[in-house]
Order: sequence, then structure tokens, then C-alpha cells
Amino acid sequence: MNTRAILHIVALLIVFEGVSMLTAVGFSLYYGGEDLWSLLITVALCFLCGGLFFFFTRGQAELKLRDGFAVVVCSWSALTAFGALPFVLSGAIPAYTDAFFETMSGFSTTGATILVNIEALPHGLLFWRSMTHWIGGMGFVVLSIAILPLLGVGGMQLFKAEVPGPTKDRLSPRITETAKILWGVYLLLSVLETVLLLLGGMSLFDALCHTFGTMATGGFSTKNHSVAHYDSLYIEAIIILFMFIAGTNFSLHYRFLSGKRDSYRLDREFRFYLQFTLITILIVAAIVYATTNVHIGAALRSAAFQVVSIITTTGFVTDDFEHWGHAGQLIMVLLMFIGGCAGSTGGSIKIIRIMVVLKHGVTEISKLLHPNALIPVRLGGRVVSTDVVTRILAFFIIYLIIFVSGSICMALLGLDTITAFSSVAATLGNVGPGLGLVGPTDHYAHVPWAGKWLLTFFMLLGRLEIYTVIVLFAPDFWRK
Amino acid sequence: MNTRAILHIVALLIVFEGVSMLTAVGFSLYYGGEDLWSLLITVALCFLCGGLFFFFTRGQAELKLRDGFAVVVCSWSALTAFGALPFVLSGAIPAYTDAFFETMSGFSTTGATILVNIEALPHGLLFWRSMTHWIGGMGFVVLSIAILPLLGVGGMQLFKAEVPGPTKDRLSPRITETAKILWGVYLLLSVLETVLLLLGGMSLFDALCHTFGTMATGGFSTKNHSVAHYDSLYIEAIIILFMFIAGTNFSLHYRFLSGKRDSYRLDREFRFYLQFTLITILIVAAIVYATTNVHIGAALRSAAFQVVSIITTTGFVTDDFEHWGHAGQLIMVLLMFIGGCAGSTGGSIKIIRIMVVLKHGVTEISKLLHPNALIPVRLGGRVVSTDVVTRILAFFIIYLIIFVSGSICMALLGLDTITAFSSVAATLGNVGPGLGLVGPTDHYAHVPWAGKWLLTFFMLLGRLEIYTVIVLFAPDFWRK
Repeated sequence: MNTRAILHIVALLIVFEGVSMLTAVGFSLYYGGEDLWSLLITVALCFLCGGLFFFFTRGQAELKLRDGFAVVVCSWSALTAFGALPFVLSGAIPAYTDAFFETMSGFSTTGATILVNIEALPHGLLFWRSMTHWIGGMGFVVLSIAILPLLGVGGMQLFKAEVPGPTKDRLSPRITETAKILWGVYLLLSVLETVLLLLGGMSLFDALCHTFGTMATGGFSTKNHSVAHYDSLYIEAIIILFMFIAGTNFSLHYRFLSGKRDSYRLDREFRFYLQFTLITILIVAAIVYATTNVHIGAALRSAAFQVVSIITTTGFVTDDFEHWGHAGQLIMVLLMFIGGCAGSTGGSIKIIRIMVVLKHGVTEISKLLHPNALIPVRLGGRVVSTDVVTRILAFFIIYLIIFVSGSICMALLGLDTITAFSSVAATLGNVGPGLGLVGPTDHYAHVPWAGKWLLTFFMLLGRLEIYTVIVLFAPDFWRK
Repeated sequence: MNTRAILHIVALLIVFEGVSMLTAVGFSLYYGGEDLWSLLITVALCFLCGGLFFFFTRGQAELKLRDGFAVVVCSWSALTAFGALPFVLSGAIPAYTDAFFETMSGFSTTGATILVNIEALPHGLLFWRSMTHWIGGMGFVVLSIAILPLLGVGGMQLFKAEVPGPTKDRLSPRITETAKILWGVYLLLSVLETVLLLLGGMSLFDALCHTFGTMATGGFSTKNHSVAHYDSLYIEAIIILFMFIAGTNFSLHYRFLSGKRDSYRLDREFRFYLQFTLITILIVAAIVYATTNVHIGAALRSAAFQVVSIITTTGFVTDDFEHWGHAGQLIMVLLMFIGGCAGSTGGSIKIIRIMVVLKHGVTEISKLLHPNALIPVRLGGRVVSTDVVTRILAFFIIYLIIFVSGSICMALLGLDTITAFSSVAATLGNVGPGLGLVGPTDHYAHVPWAGKWLLTFFMLLGRLEIYTVIVLFAPDFWRK
């Protein structure tokens, strides 16, 4: 382990966090500045601590494969540790546990909140809260497309050959280049959504915050009733569209923008994502229509928003799906395990893995009938190597094991069964709202102290594609 | 497909079913004979239909691999179709749907009941009901050790080389020999348990019925309050012991009985099964102690019975685990996915598969740290081939997919979420009692009509190790 080099990178990111927080300072000033000092003190702390560490860890050696895991986990944790400070310093969220939960929920683009009254938060803090989403999403796009495939983690390993980015064992040369391209796309789409939301009558402040929540598939809103607050078909349509875009592989957007018009059409994962989303919307709309007293148009509108919000793991809300009958609720919880495409800002298991898992099942049934034939798993005509298939199956299984043991822990802490398993599904999948006491119109404030830390850990675990974190717990990792 | 040969075997089994039913006729006569005619008519029908079909399908050709799947599925279904008749003819269970559910629950060794008042059933029918368990268990032991490995299905494929039985592509020569050995063991253990229960003060009738329920890991009792009726530590201890034995690989019993004293000790799966059961009992006892007002001895007794009952998928009850808090309930539902060892009469996923799935997860994490190393999955020092690992992973995943889609269907039929998913877990795993409306002290009578047929199908699916049934739905299966 090259501790020095790892700290060097983390320190740089903390300085960057301080710089980002300055935008929140701007909004704080504009809206009266009651949270000004808490933000300024944190900015100063970021510059001081980040700067000192950066200075004293200069001259680092080259990073090794193994260091990559530590860099990723330390960065996300350190950013959260500092990012939580303004909430505590201002007194808006007195307990550090709660502030850490809220900030990890931001950086991991989960969107689960412990705030009972969101609108009571001063504007500077509210902006910073949404901004953690945007930073987290930005970090994750680069992570999943440029860095994780190098570590052998994440659904993108399937596309290794296709993606712009480094393919060698070392963690530096082409990452910067890839990052710039992806951030360009991310920024462009964010500007576009902000403008469209402004046209829908949102203030610049709200438009930016909701854009951050959408593009990062985060889900923090500035309103207590989330997007339902606006009750505007136009705003909902824009947010549905951009949630769907944010749940798409960002390298497809890049290819499309650089002139390859068939980029989406040729991508198997994208087609499955699109078809699956449309079919699910129709099924859920039928259930909404059957279980509530709304006309078919309203059912479709509500189903479309909630389904896209949960599939992409965003977590914005316009309707309480706890009123959609048992089947409706169950389907929504199951959608929490889908996630968007690999290489998107979406969390959870992700479409490509679900596809491989399903294909594997079908292939094994064929093998029973043709015991001597060699039948590989194929995706869009291409053979998926056994190595990749077994790795994805293992991911799927480890995900389930964590989900199940997490649910038991939450139940042991006293939560009812539905709340226990949906809170784990919603945090591990970086979704946000669950069912029961943590439902779409509720919050995580009443979860016991230990439960909050556990769920915070699940958010980190889910965001970093599980493996990146658990590798650090393997005894092998710490051996020379 | 060799339809003639398939029908020939099924017809023979139906005649055998008629013969078995004669024992129930004996008990009916002894206890007053109010159900005598319903049993006699069914026996006659079995002889007539079975005999005729057997006669007209003589001179069958050799069975092919593919026919094996059809034989197994047709046998279980046909036996259930005939076995349900006495219940309907006597008027004890007026609806054929209910009678079919109850009988499939018997033959699949599930033990889920639609009976509201079990003790109201005449003794002949009660005996036949328990006997379906014993026949089902007997059938499954031979199926899982001697037949399924040939079809490439079931956890036993791992032990192919070790097990007495045929290894070639044809479905006849050594099956008879293996079957005789296994049935000998099964019969011996059944006699032993019956005698021990008689010593505990049970009547011969009850001792036999509870033995059938235990040895087949079925769970039908002759009492409304199941084993709690006796409130006897001795009887509970005997049943715990024999449930555990029934959940053990029967070829280990055979080897032990033929003089290999270390047969259990050397078996990795058995050791895991034993350790896992003991640890789970302790954890659950702690939860019972913490959530209910009983002393530690009573908590241990209750935990031991319920844990062994659920892990082995028996489903006998001495305590209502719905009073064990959310965590206690959740753990009990999760235990429904374990099942006993491969080659036992237990249902569900089975220990060996769980072990391979867990080992695979650990192996993949090691691979992340040593990306260029070849790390196979090992079990007890032996390498498990990639083929077997991927097959087991596929089984695990298909099991989950069926569980999840089944739960959605049950929720669509109007059941609450907890009842929906626990009813599917309990039938697919051949356990019996679930949670909510189908909890340990409840029954399946109020499940809607369509739900009963679906759950009946899940019992069959679970009992025949999933694959055996779903290959029949593969278009490939019906091609020449």
C-alpha cells in the first residue's frame, strides 16, 4: 500500500470540495446568509487540511492496482466527513451521525434524507446538499467508465475494449482524457436540463438543485413534497426524460454527440433498458389504475414518473406508491434492484448484469437438453467470456447476501420487516425512498443511531459497486 | 419423446398408489370406517386406470435421457391427481382444487394445509394424507440420488462418482439396486422413529403419521396444534433428531450403516449442516429469549424445534414464530431457503448449493486481488469444476427469479406482501408454514383459487429441483 500517494489524491479532492462549496456560499449570501459562517468555516478547513496533506505527501510513487481500491473508498469517505460539517456547524442538523448520513446520501447519489422539514434548511446548505449529488455523480461516471474496469470491478468490464480510456495496469495516463470527455457530456446535459426547468417556471436555485438530483440519479429535492410540489406535467416530463438519460451509459451519449447517430440503437443494454422501462410503466400504470381512483392518464403519468425514478435509482417522488396495493409496492421494491445501465450515474445491480444473469439461466436450461454441447452466454451476438459471467454472478449473489444480512440487522435494531428490507434495498441500491417507515413520503430520521451508520455504509458499498469496498476487508489485501 | 414408455411407468406407479392406499383402508376400518367407500373407490380406480394403461403400453422401448424429465413430472402429477380423490369423494374436502393442493402438499413433502380443523378428518383419510408424505419422501430420495444426477439436475451431481448408482446415459440398470438400498435405510429409520414415538406414549396411528411427516421432511400432523399438541419434551427431542436425520444425505446413512463409522465426519456438507444448525439455534434462542417472556431453557427448546423444522423444510410446529419479533420472523423466512443436504428428503436450495455459492463469492474476491491467478472453487480440498459451479449458480438464480415473480403474482391476487412472499418461499421450498395469513398457526384455506393452483405448481417445481419441470417448457424440449 502506497499510503502517501493515496493521501495525496484524497487531499487534492478535499481542496476541490472546498472550491465547490464556494458556490453554496454565493447562494447563501444571496438568500440572507444565515448559514454563511458554517460554510465558510468548512471551506477554510478543507483548504487547510487538504492543503497541508497535499503539501506533505508530495513526490508520491506510481499508484498500484491495489491502491486504487483504497483511493476510491477513502475519497468518498473523506469527502463525506468534511461535507457533513456545514450542517453540524450551522445547527441545521445537530447530530454528526445525521449529517454524515445526509452527506453520504448526497455523495453516493442515494437521496435518502433524515430531514423532516427540508424547506426549513437555509438556502446555502440546501444548495450544498444537492451539490453533493452532482459531485458524486460526476465522480462515479469517471469511476465506473475509466477506473473500475481497471480494477476488474463494475458492469463496464464487458465493454473494456469499446470505451475511451486506459487499458493498462497503471492508474494514470488516459484517465484525465476520459474524465474530461465524460465531464463535458455531464456538464452539457446538466446545463440543458437547468435551462429547460427554468423555462418551466422554476427559480434558478430550484432548477439547479433539481438538475443535480436528476443528472446524478440522486433524488434530493428542495421541497418537502419533492417534485410533486410543482404539480406540473411539463416539469415532470423534463425530469422523467433526464432521469432516463442519466440512467444511460455516458459513453453512448459521448458517441452520439460525436456524430454516431446509431449509438443508442446498436447498444443491447440500452435497448433492454428502454423496453424494460416502457413495459414496466404500462404494467404499473394498470395496477395504479386498478387500485386507486384516478383516470388512466393520471395513472400513466404517475407510473411513468415513479417507475423511471426507481429504475434509475433517482428517488424523486410525485406520488406515494404505498397506496398502489401490495403488488404495486412489491414491484417498486423489486425495481430498486435493477438500476440504470453500466456507465451511468445509476446505482444498484444495473441492467447489463441483470441481462447476463438471465441469459445464464436460459443457457443452463439449454445445456440440460444438450448435455454434450458447448453453449456460451451470448449478448447481442457476442460471446461473453465465462470469467465475466462468473464474476457477474458472484456480484449478484454478494449483493443479495449483503441485502439479506443487512435486513436482518435492521430488523434486530427494531424496524418492522417491510421497513427493514426496503431501507436496505433503497440505500444499497442508492435509490432513496423505501417502504413502510422510510416510504416515499417519509424520512430516515427515526431510524436508530446504529441503523443510520449501517445504512450509510450500505450507501457507500452500493455506490462503489460492492467489490471495491469489500476487497479492503479481505485479509489478502493487507498482506505484502 | 417416448410417450408409451412414459405412460407405462406412470401407470405402474398408480397401481402402486392403489396398493399403498389399502393401508389407509385398514385404519379406516379400525376407526369406524366413515371414509371407507371413498378410499375403496379410489383404490379400485387406481387399479383399473393404472392396470389398463399399464397393459396397453406394454413392450416399451428404452427410455432416453429426455424422457426422464417427463416421467418424473408426470408421475408426481398423476399420483396427486388420483391421491386427491378420497378427500373429494368423502366430502371431507369438497373442492378438487383444495384436495389437489393438499395432496400435492403431501407428495411434495411440503406440509402446507388448507384444512381448518385437521382433527375433524376421518382417520383413514388422515392416514392417507400423512402417507402421501412418506411415499413422496421415498420417491424423492431415489430421485435425487439415483435419477436426477443422470439428468444433470440436483445438488447430487457433485457426488456423482461417490454414489451407488448408474453413471451411464440409459435410465435403468442399476437404479433398482440403488433404490433398494435407499429404501432399506428409509424404512429402517422410519421403524426406529415409530418405535421411539410409541415409547413416548403416542398411539400407533399418531406415531406412524408423525414418522411419515418427519422422515419425508413433510410436516403434516394429525393434530390441529401440530407437535405442540403433545407438549412433551421427549417427543419433541425425538422429532428434532429424526428431522435432522431426514435432512441428511441418505447415502451417508447407508455408508454409516455398512460400517464406515466416519461417514458423517468426513462429509463437508454434513459438517456445515450440523454447525449451521447449531449456531442458528443459539442465535434464534437468544432472540426468542429477548422478545418473549420465557426462561432460557424454554427458549432453547422452542428455537431448536422450529429451526430444525424449517432448515430441514419439515414444517412441524411447537411455537408460533410470528411472536419472535421482526428479526426472528425474518430469520425463519430466510431459513426456508436453506433446505437440508443434497440426497436427503429436504427441499429448497440445499446446503451444498449454498456452500458452493458462498465459496464462489469468496473466490471472486480473491481473484480481484490476484487478477492473473487461476483460483478454482474448492470444497473440502477438492476442486469443483466450473461447469458444476455455473450450473449451481444458475439454479440459485432461477430459484430466486421464480420466488420473486411468484410473490408478485400472489400479491396481484390480493395477498399482503408478507403473506405473498412467505407463501411462495414456503411452498417452493417445500416447507409448509409461512408468515402472515399462512403463518405457523394458520392455514392456506383462504388463499384465492388461482393462488392455490400457483402454489401447488411451486410445490411440484420445488420438489423436482426446478430444472426437471422447467425444461418441459423449453421449446427445444419438444423438437425432434
